[in-house]
Amino acid sequence: MKSYRKELWFEIPDRRGFINITPHVKQCLAESGISEGLCLVNAMHITASVFINDDERGLHNDFERWLETLAPHEPLSLYQHNQTGEDNGDAHLKRSVMGREVVIAVSERELDFGPWEQVFYGEFDGRRRKRVLVKIIGA
Amino acid sequence: MKSYRKELWFEIPDRRGFINITPHVKQCLAESGISEGLCLVNAMHITASVFINDDERGLHNDFERWLETLAPHEPLSLYQHNQTGEDNGDAHLKRSVMGREVVIAVSERELDFGPWEQVFYGEFDGRRRKRVLVKIIGA
Amino acid sequence: MKSYRKELWFEIPDRRGFINITPHVKQCLAESGISEGLCLVNAMHITASVFINDDERGLHNDFERWLETLAPHEPLSLYQHNQTGEDNGDAHLKRSVMGREVVIAVSERELDFGPWEQVFYGEFDGRRRKRVLVKIIGA
Repeated sequence: MKSYRKELWFEIPDRRGFINITPHVKQCLAESGISEGLCLVNAMHITASVFINDDERGLHNDFERWLETLAPHEPLSLYQHNQTGEDNGDAHLKRSVMGREVVIAVSERELDFGPWEQVFYGEFDGRRRKRVLVKIIGA
Repeated sequence: MKSYRKELWFEIPDRRGFINITPHVKQCLAESGISEGLCLVNAMHITASVFINDDERGLHNDFERWLETLAPHEPLSLYQHNQTGEDNGDAHLKRSVMGREVVIAVSERELDFGPWEQVFYGEFDGRRRKRVLVKIIGA
Repeated sequence: MKSYRKELWFEIPDRRGFINITPHVKQCLAESGISEGLCLVNAMHITASVFINDDERGLHNDFERWLETLAPHEPLSLYQHNQTGEDNGDAHLKRSVMGREVVIAVSERELDFGPWEQVFYGEFDGRRRKRVLVKIIGA
């Protein structure tokens, strides 16, 4: 069994944003030399997300608006968590909706995706460098 | 290490619906010959979901009603994504709540499930053939 | 390829609650002898969740309040599922938001976590003994 590990670093200039990280994950798979297996991609921070969806700007705006409806950033007093001095209570909840991780099949040296699947890093408390972990196991 | 891959095709006659795909996944596991490992089951489309819950019709009706509350299909103008000519903005959000994938332990040649766990395909933009991927790795 | 399996049992004295199960999962990893691989941790019950977030009491209170807003326990008549004689329709929905499972990278014999990542069992229909499955595969 082969295994591969890499950390990817991102810094989103705003509080929230989405980045298509599919090219980075493909690069990891190429480096791994693994042809059949499973690829885990997860946020290493608990106010960020890794998810699979469509690379379409309108949809990303819909996610942004919708998540603000489900778990608004303000008022900060809405979240007990913010009494610790943080202002990211909403970010923990938004990340829970979007998910921490994805597991992707690896088949014939490729990410085994449907036609529109793309991997995104979702940031809900940005303006600092944060990490994504790529772990691939297989043969 | 052994690996196995299969695509399962489904066509839901309505816009939304849930199908219990557990028998299909069990069949895949039997074909794989794998006795210990991990089984990934994921929607290959970004407006559909694979999830684990109870096979109870009332609960499925509750999911349908609840998801419509969280991300209603109409008005179509609610979603910027629909300005692309699509009418499935809501489906991308509903799928995010229910999840893209499940990872199931394989132990002693069986799906290692609790008493009520069943695997479902959740369709949020149906009336066409769509795919689920089953990937199993192990020994 | 090595594989390891263990069931962890928990009983939450209230209907809902969160327990940090990270020490239990670390113990499983130590017992497994696996140094590189993937660790699946999943609820075996469909009204409970395993998720990764922060071990901060205020945040857990925020989760509790927020989930009650998204899928309130009462009125029981809100859920068709409760017509079966159950009173846990809300618990199935809450678990869907928080997720059934997590997949954790194993690197150099450790859970490969970011600085604040902790694994939680989330109970939404407690007051009875319920199980979590830990399955680890690797080398």
